[in-house]
Amino acid sequence: MQLAIIKIGGNIIDDEAKLAAFLDGFAAVPGKKILVHGGGKLATKVAAALGVGQQLVDGRRITDTETLKIVTMVYAGTINKNLVAQLQARGCDAIGLTGADGNSIRAHKRVHPEIEYGWVGDVDSIDAAFLTGLLLLNKTPVFAPITHDTRGQLLNTNADTIAQELARGLGRSFDVSLVYSFEKSGVLLDTNDEDSVIPRIGPAYYEELKRKQAIFAGMIPKLDNAFTALRSGVRKVIIGRAEELPRLLDGKAGTTIVND
Amino acid sequence: MQLAIIKIGGNIIDDEAKLAAFLDGFAAVPGKKILVHGGGKLATKVAAALGVGQQLVDGRRITDTETLKIVTMVYAGTINKNLVAQLQARGCDAIGLTGADGNSIRAHKRVHPEIEYGWVGDVDSIDAAFLTGLLLLNKTPVFAPITHDTRGQLLNTNADTIAQELARGLGRSFDVSLVYSFEKSGVLLDTNDEDSVIPRIGPAYYEELKRKQAIFAGMIPKLDNAFTALRSGVRKVIIGRAEELPRLLDGKAGTTIVND
Repeated sequence: MQLAIIKIGGNIIDDEAKLAAFLDGFAAVPGKKILVHGGGKLATKVAAALGVGQQLVDGRRITDTETLKIVTMVYAGTINKNLVAQLQARGCDAIGLTGADGNSIRAHKRVHPEIEYGWVGDVDSIDAAFLTGLLLLNKTPVFAPITHDTRGQLLNTNADTIAQELARGLGRSFDVSLVYSFEKSGVLLDTNDEDSVIPRIGPAYYEELKRKQAIFAGMIPKLDNAFTALRSGVRKVIIGRAEELPRLLDGKAGTTIVND
Repeated sequence: MQLAIIKIGGNIIDDEAKLAAFLDGFAAVPGKKILVHGGGKLATKVAAALGVGQQLVDGRRITDTETLKIVTMVYAGTINKNLVAQLQARGCDAIGLTGADGNSIRAHKRVHPEIEYGWVGDVDSIDAAFLTGLLLLNKTPVFAPITHDTRGQLLNTNADTIAQELARGLGRSFDVSLVYSFEKSGVLLDTNDEDSVIPRIGPAYYEELKRKQAIFAGMIPKLDNAFTALRSGVRKVIIGRAEELPRLLDGKAGTTIVND
């Protein structure tokens, strides 16, 4: 059975028109699907309004206790429930989840030799049986980027990682397409030219692109993650523009990354 | 099959020690169960910190657009996810829901001839099949007091009403005990004497108590609702102290309201 796992970035959530176009496309995707959303700027705005200072290290938010309260409110409350309600309005029977809900994603607090990330979680495992049960009830899980340690602690967790772990964990039972949708058309040969999308990348071509330094350096971690996912049972990884979702899944837009 | 539907009030949520005692008891309840929680003072605190004014009419919060954002954050985000994580830590496989999640509780915006309540929902129906599916997956639904109108609008909804509608809707498939747990020992003959709990109230005795004005007037709507629930298929309604939950269900504490 096919399953599409689709991650949308915070830039899409922050843009009402792009988000509406994405949700139209997402609701129209036939069959089983899961949405994973990032955070967006709302958490930063709410933190500022509440006078909670924000600290970033290497682009990652340091999640102190007050920040965890804010991301839990904003990601699992505001953003998740509004996405669910908007999908319901489009006839998509969405159910919002964090990793604590149904014990669906178990994680542990990140341990790092130099950086104290705070309440940030690294994923240990997902409950594939429970998620399969929801999918068979014809529900569409919508994940906020929050997990738990099974001992009562919520943990702020990277949405790309959640999408990848879900894809890996469900790849044993489903034919999984993992989609990273964002504000670009795909993997570009020329980062300033949205028409330079590379339609298909396999391992050999990827090595060649890296050797020639033909792709934007910021793309390399995303592509490395994509190949890791492919090696652990995911059928294909697709990177492309959120508003073009149905065409991404049909291979008519974006970049499809495959293992052959 | 037996099902316990338990509502906890905001006063319990606001009290860390009482909440921990309640959650210990809730996790220990054997078999199928559902938790419905109210709001508590956190929404008021967050609204004040964000500079959003609050309006109350007849003890009900008027839910303007900014207030709806706050209750969604606080009820469905902070409170719901912390309850879920704390139940998971106690071995109870909780899953947090609003009425939008899985389209589980459909409502409409309240229409009132004189008062504009704002984004407040009155419940139309619950999805008993979906909730039964979750219960059969051995999950424990935890409801935040938020529903939706199926057209994209979230609605602030009274938690007592949600508990009652769940009890009615699930009363066809389950042998439902509906518990309103709060900071009092039960229905009291003397409102200042916690030892004056009436252990059992049937319809005839209730009429007698009302005629003699022997019970606190504030209890009457709760009891009227209890008898309405009993007439629509709920087996028993129990009112009592949140920390005594297992004893309430065993009939060893609190007031049990029955239809005979």
